Amino acid sequence: MSQMGNDRGADTVLALCGGIGGAKLALGLYHELAPGQLVVAVNTGDDFEHLGLCISPDLDTVLYTLGGVADPNRGWGRANETWNFMSALDELGGEAWFQLGDRDLAMHVERTGYLRDGKLLSEFAAHAARKLGINALILPMTDDRLRTIVVTNDGELPFQRYFVERRCAPVVGALRFEGAERARPVAKLLKSLANPALRAIVICPSNPYLSIDPFLAMPELRRALSCTRTPVIAVSPIIGNQAVKGPAAKIMTELGIPVTTQSIAAHYRGLIDGLVIDATDAHEASNIGVPTLTTRTLMLDLADRKRLAGEVIAFADEIASHDETVRVPRSTIGRPS
Amino acid sequence: MSQMGNDRGADTVLALCGGIGGAKLALGLYHELAPGQLVVAVNTGDDFEHLGLCISPDLDTVLYTLGGVADPNRGWGRANETWNFMSALDELGGEAWFQLGDRDLAMHVERTGYLRDGKLLSEFAAHAARKLGINALILPMTDDRLRTIVVTNDGELPFQRYFVERRCAPVVGALRFEGAERARPVAKLLKSLANPALRAIVICPSNPYLSIDPFLAMPELRRALSCTRTPVIAVSPIIGNQAVKGPAAKIMTELGIPVTTQSIAAHYRGLIDGLVIDATDAHEASNIGVPTLTTRTLMLDLADRKRLAGEVIAFADEIASHDETVRVPRSTIGRPS
Repeated sequence: MSQMGNDRGADTVLALCGGIGGAKLALGLYHELAPGQLVVAVNTGDDFEHLGLCISPDLDTVLYTLGGVADPNRGWGRANETWNFMSALDELGGEAWFQLGDRDLAMHVERTGYLRDGKLLSEFAAHAARKLGINALILPMTDDRLRTIVVTNDGELPFQRYFVERRCAPVVGALRFEGAERARPVAKLLKSLANPALRAIVICPSNPYLSIDPFLAMPELRRALSCTRTPVIAVSPIIGNQAVKGPAAKIMTELGIPVTTQSIAAHYRGLIDGLVIDATDAHEASNIGVPTLTTRTLMLDLADRKRLAGEVIAFADEIASHDETVRVPRSTIGRPS
Repeated sequence: MSQMGNDRGADTVLALCGGIGGAKLALGLYHELAPGQLVVAVNTGDDFEHLGLCISPDLDTVLYTLGGVADPNRGWGRANETWNFMSALDELGGEAWFQLGDRDLAMHVERTGYLRDGKLLSEFAAHAARKLGINALILPMTDDRLRTIVVTNDGELPFQRYFVERRCAPVVGALRFEGAERARPVAKLLKSLANPALRAIVICPSNPYLSIDPFLAMPELRRALSCTRTPVIAVSPIIGNQAVKGPAAKIMTELGIPVTTQSIAAHYRGLIDGLVIDATDAHEASNIGVPTLTTRTLMLDLADRKRLAGEVIAFADEIASHDETVRVPRSTIGRPS
């Protein structure tokens, strides 16, 4: 509607995501939506300080992916990357367990400078997005310190120590999110969530336990997500009892959770209005408890990403149209079916 | 003498130097002397903080040069260097006026980590020298903060802003060394200077005003240099009224100092026992005021560096042998002739 032309929220889609898997769908959404219509809120639970630098792995993956400079094969870091810093660091006996590419380093040095100067991570994200020519709002989920701690049979490990240094080998007993109780979602994320004209909220196929739970561990975010009238659609990261990439299936098994799309639905119960599952898991659709969209969720190329993004938005629009007259906050009506 | 075999100072040569030009002679000395016999004290007046990193340009030039990893053509930085960090930094709108190579960055990141952990610059230098396989003692002249400030017609400029960002264009009115009055030379430098068995002290052909004066601005260092009984030999950086490299001649002119080897001798008066000058300037030898060695001082290759180093040491030995019985601190006898 023309009178809403200046209201950014009118046709906006908000995506919540972690790194690699989530960023794939975020890229699909970015291509499917008109410029400026996408807001991506990114997990910061994996952030850490290393070699004096403030590193935000998921945020950078999203920035690089939407900026068109991500490495197409590795899944993280930048294309045409070189590793001479690491090589010289290793020679000097420095901590070489976390790979930092030469181009990638610029992001960390600049971000660290921003934070040292008292600016916010969200300000840096906006700056970097602009410099990378991204016409979408990229938000770290919070500007506050929130850190994912993996409780393992080998003790508590900061996320990157578990994920990168230990290659997810320790058995996970629990996850906790240090600082989550006090952390506030960034204002623009809350504003986006509160906009009644928001078209859809998409929980990307990121690891629910590692990448999405840090969002949900912030009370204010969980409440806003529970109370929004905008359809919330999650895309299951589980296909045929396996995770497409990463340790989701291993962690679920270690936590005693069946590696099924039903488990994903149960995990997001009370928060989502629909779940997108892979055709491989079509037999589970009847036991999901929320409306499902069964499609091909594996994203091997850009065409896959765009098609899935389009289907997810259409699915959200369909749910919204059904609910149009009766839609009230889920928290007051309990679980939809 | 065999009973002095364990006394490091017995056959040690101490070199004072800045970056490029000085490092060339330091490399010659390194090759000419037996392993462990060279101590190099390096100017830290050019050090600065940039992008959150602690950068010591002269120290690194010496480390890279003696470590055999210096770029043979550029004169600074590392061989086989790449510049992808700079390229990405520029893309992000970062401060790109000071070139930091990808390999070089590792040195700055590690050094910054050392200093952040409360360790000393001299500890880092020893660590880096060891890692680079250097069998010489490389010392920053001080662990304290001492910063060269160039007073120009465009106001006061921190050294790197003058040297790199402004490419030495502003007219120099004076130089001052912030913190020099309170700065203490590193203990190992004082110990080396105090060792009565020290064979020679070599002031490398570095810029006297920019690279050596920061040493001399530390009262304790100037006093130790004035009082040592070890021959102090300077190598003139001026050849035929020109500086081999860098802004020495330009600065001398701007300061109203004739660009001659005599001016260099006058600058070091009371501190040196001998000056090494280039054959081009042989006509000045009679007016130098200290014993001179006239030779070829231009160092184009390693053979030049080694030959000049050998000649400098022989010159020092010769001066020492003449002075053997009568040698007393210069400060008590005034200027030698």
